[in-house]
Amino acid sequence: MLADPTPTLIVHGGAGNLGPDDPASSGGADAPRLEGVRRACEIGWAILRGGGAALDAVEAAVRALEDDPTFNAGTGSTLTAAGDVEMDASIMDGETLRCGGVAAVKDVRNPIVLARAVMERTEHVLLAGPGASAFAREIGIPAYDNALLVTPRQRARWEAARNGASASRTGTVGAVARDLRGHLAAATSTGGMSMKRPGRVGDTPIIGAGTYADDALAAISCTGHGERIVQLTLARHAADLVGRGRSPMEAAREAVTLLAARVAGEGGLIVVGPSGEPGFANNTQVMSRAWVGADGAIVVGM
Amino acid sequence: MLADPTPTLIVHGGAGNLGPDDPASSGGADAPRLEGVRRACEIGWAILRGGGAALDAVEAAVRALEDDPTFNAGTGSTLTAAGDVEMDASIMDGETLRCGGVAAVKDVRNPIVLARAVMERTEHVLLAGPGASAFAREIGIPAYDNALLVTPRQRARWEAARNGASASRTGTVGAVARDLRGHLAAATSTGGMSMKRPGRVGDTPIIGAGTYADDALAAISCTGHGERIVQLTLARHAADLVGRGRSPMEAAREAVTLLAARVAGEGGLIVVGPSGEPGFANNTQVMSRAWVGADGAIVVGM
Repeated sequence: MLADPTPTLIVHGGAGNLGPDDPASSGGADAPRLEGVRRACEIGWAILRGGGAALDAVEAAVRALEDDPTFNAGTGSTLTAAGDVEMDASIMDGETLRCGGVAAVKDVRNPIVLARAVMERTEHVLLAGPGASAFAREIGIPAYDNALLVTPRQRARWEAARNGASASRTGTVGAVARDLRGHLAAATSTGGMSMKRPGRVGDTPIIGAGTYADDALAAISCTGHGERIVQLTLARHAADLVGRGRSPMEAAREAVTLLAARVAGEGGLIVVGPSGEPGFANNTQVMSRAWVGADGAIVVGM
Repeated sequence: MLADPTPTLIVHGGAGNLGPDDPASSGGADAPRLEGVRRACEIGWAILRGGGAALDAVEAAVRALEDDPTFNAGTGSTLTAAGDVEMDASIMDGETLRCGGVAAVKDVRNPIVLARAVMERTEHVLLAGPGASAFAREIGIPAYDNALLVTPRQRARWEAARNGASASRTGTVGAVARDLRGHLAAATSTGGMSMKRPGRVGDTPIIGAGTYADDALAAISCTGHGERIVQLTLARHAADLVGRGRSPMEAAREAVTLLAARVAGEGGLIVVGPSGEPGFANNTQVMSRAWVGADGAIVVGM
């Protein structure tokens, strides 16, 4: 297949349901979320438009979302039952099927950067916990104080959850892209489920669950209730649907329908197919997202 | 579909290539491995024949293999680069799609028992590292001294690998079953890749990679070079092949062919389909396995 010269990028800021302190739940627009996904999309798009690789674009977009305290990834992650941050991330290159991930990592600023280093600088595809941190130090990624990852908003939510408020099961960031050479990539990062047990690993760092990319199929990033997404190997399932002829939009819709029907799961996903068509769907109240339209302008939506 | 009244069980003791100290490489039979898989099969079969659940049968069979020092799981696990044991395991129930796993756990005797507890006693599907150990203590699974998991044979291999001998990438144990009610289950456990980095997670605890079970598709347990199996979401892929009409034997062969062709991966898998047909294949020199023939007698093979 000849590469279509138009690159594609979609980013998401997580599928979820609105809490009482969310601006959008009282009818207002969730401006910080839309601004955050727009900015991440601009950063990734600048790379793709300049002829850069899909892998670089998705890493840069997710890194920007990790650094934005609005989102549940990197700075601004939800807190575990123990009251600190533990993060998961993964990245996959559709050209080579190379992939890397980190799980339950506590002391890096950008888990997606560490996930890419696992892919490129080890013979492994997933490092968890203290071993992931030791690898980060070994390659010169400095220790980052866990307290710096905790925002006042997440601390307040944690206090409320300890006092009986319902904890959030959702919220993740991700990006999928197709570059000028026709290669696909996907990246996903999260602080995970609020009030999770220490050591809990969700779908985000699991290749085939939260993230998948294969130039012959599609690139996928999922968000939502991770345990339910894992049960269905949802990213791989959606990629296979594209491989069997569904459009990326059909595949995304079919995947969230299955998620609800088989395991009563809530979530969403973004999809880009081999010829660059975008797809996205969610069965939650919102999923902030941004993508680049046919005219090159960035579009945002919830 | 009405349940066929014949249950099915297959166990494997890992796919691998023979090292110079392996009895079979000098032409002898690998008697301890064949005896080990036979015994594990007998234990699981007693449960199935008595009307027990597939989930109980696969857990009991894998537990027996973990306790057998011949196999790379539980006692007898390979050692990490740091010289101790870190284990991965997972289990999945094909009736409900419930699943549980543990990764990089160092201080339990039977990781498969802990994986099942994650499934049944938490809202999560995977716990890693110290968090998995903390959960074990919380539910009364006692700490088990890591040194008791290290056999003299694995210590000698580790010393040799430190001195430049090639490290093993393979070796895992697993079981798949169909019970009298027609339900499927799968379980897998491993010490992982020899000389791995601490914190490395392979395919074994990853639902969809090392283990998958869905009554509507198949039950699968994989073994081999875990990173390559993860890249292809191999267990889910093989299950989908059965779902699309392949026999379990065809699906197993097609899966190992893909493993070699797409990612130059070495490994194998065992499969049981919805009506109880068994399948297995490997592209390594050996894969010890035992299953129950149509006459109820246990058959072993390499």
